[in-house]
Amino acid sequence: MKPTVAIVGVGLIGGSLGRALRKSHRYRVLGISRKSATLREAVRVGALDEASKNISAVADADLIVVCTPVALIPPTIEKLLPFLKPSAIVTDAGSVKGDILRRVARWQKQGKLNFVGSHPLAGSHKTGVKASRSDLFFGSTVVLTPQGKTRLNAIAALWKATGASVVTLSADRHDQAVALISHLPHLVAHALVQSVSRRSDTPLLKRLMAGSFRDTTRVAAADPDQWDQIFTANQSAVKQALMQFRQALVRLERSMGRPSFRSLLKQSQKFRQPLFHGK
Amino acid sequence: MKPTVAIVGVGLIGGSLGRALRKSHRYRVLGISRKSATLREAVRVGALDEASKNISAVADADLIVVCTPVALIPPTIEKLLPFLKPSAIVTDAGSVKGDILRRVARWQKQGKLNFVGSHPLAGSHKTGVKASRSDLFFGSTVVLTPQGKTRLNAIAALWKATGASVVTLSADRHDQAVALISHLPHLVAHALVQSVSRRSDTPLLKRLMAGSFRDTTRVAAADPDQWDQIFTANQSAVKQALMQFRQALVRLERSMGRPSFRSLLKQSQKFRQPLFHGK
Repeated sequence: MKPTVAIVGVGLIGGSLGRALRKSHRYRVLGISRKSATLREAVRVGALDEASKNISAVADADLIVVCTPVALIPPTIEKLLPFLKPSAIVTDAGSVKGDILRRVARWQKQGKLNFVGSHPLAGSHKTGVKASRSDLFFGSTVVLTPQGKTRLNAIAALWKATGASVVTLSADRHDQAVALISHLPHLVAHALVQSVSRRSDTPLLKRLMAGSFRDTTRVAAADPDQWDQIFTANQSAVKQALMQFRQALVRLERSMGRPSFRSLLKQSQKFRQPLFHGK
Repeated sequence: MKPTVAIVGVGLIGGSLGRALRKSHRYRVLGISRKSATLREAVRVGALDEASKNISAVADADLIVVCTPVALIPPTIEKLLPFLKPSAIVTDAGSVKGDILRRVARWQKQGKLNFVGSHPLAGSHKTGVKASRSDLFFGSTVVLTPQGKTRLNAIAALWKATGASVVTLSADRHDQAVALISHLPHLVAHALVQSVSRRSDTPLLKRLMAGSFRDTTRVAAADPDQWDQIFTANQSAVKQALMQFRQALVRLERSMGRPSFRSLLKQSQKFRQPLFHGK
């Protein structure tokens, strides 16, 4: 019999996961949400085999993936505890791992929870199950952060079934890495927008904006509530990443107009060009 | 009879301009380059009616568009001077205007040159005539910066024939605006790349990079020589833009974890979301 995966929170990530797992034909997918409209839409797009508004439905599940916004992950897991099968393994899809792992460690020590942290490095500035895609994780990387004695195999297999590859890291290394390659770019995108949005000549500036402003600021359109939670949960790593960014920016500014400036531009161009298949 | 447009420098911008003007059937397009291979390719992709390796060929032209890298625009114009028809109007496609206008003002005062500055706000991180497209300027904005008594009409009509719309600005306002919406994003993209490229764990970071790093750093892949020239020519405006950016970044950093942080994210999300048709 196929293992049952319960997806708690069926938005962009939960919906995309459900669609990918159903396409793999290897899992039975149960979606749990408080909103009937979300569940209806998730069933309509083919993300779920079954839907429930009641969190007790996880009693049925072998694997549970909590796909709520970051701040809701620990309280959601707490609500699941009374209903979990002893063998059930819980994971999440949150962009921050240390903060979440520290909050759930107690339940794991008490024997109430088998938890592994997951972070699929894929997403969109769009939200909701309507924006979900069965190929969202295809070719992407998912970080697993081990916790206590919980074995990773079943959770690794689940993400691999979506077409992702899996990397195992400590929560701290994960949080440092994503601060640099994801949280910092988001913060910088907001600062770029705010350098323009508070001026009196924004109508002119809007008219002149082209591809560079469009792409560097795209992620500033992402959901502010979700990102407030991510930054709050990963503050210290983000502040360290910001220090490195500021040093790089000062180095560039000081050398502007000198031969070393061109060398700096060349270095980053050389690093950036081959990434993302030249995109 | 159709007016003759000479395009001096047939790369991405010159090639795209030639293709767009030929498609409009309103101009005869003459391309001038020192490289035979570039001219052959430009003719092959349909960017030119005629090609010449000799700058004296501009004697034939009613309008001349200098599409070389920024630092070469004034010296190239100087080379054109002996061959220009008295009625010929010269423009350029450089991303900086004040520096160029100051360098050519002398020849204009001497009655040797009719000049209007142009800056088409369209481009790509790719270079060369192979990357040219007849629709590169379609729907984009071109800034014209008047200079002396030269009338703008003929140059405005030329850009409109490519599907662009035209805005007239002083060189200073242009340079301030592009420092904010284009040069600053480029500088920040390089600083983001360098926050990552100088670390010992770059292989891991490369593996985890996803859409946010891809898009915020895309323009760091642009030609370092061209951008060195642009930053050098627009240094003071870029440094002012950097001050605004740093203020925005400090404001975000200081509020992280407090309610005002979410408000800041909301502000920039609200500003950014409707731009670029939601892209």
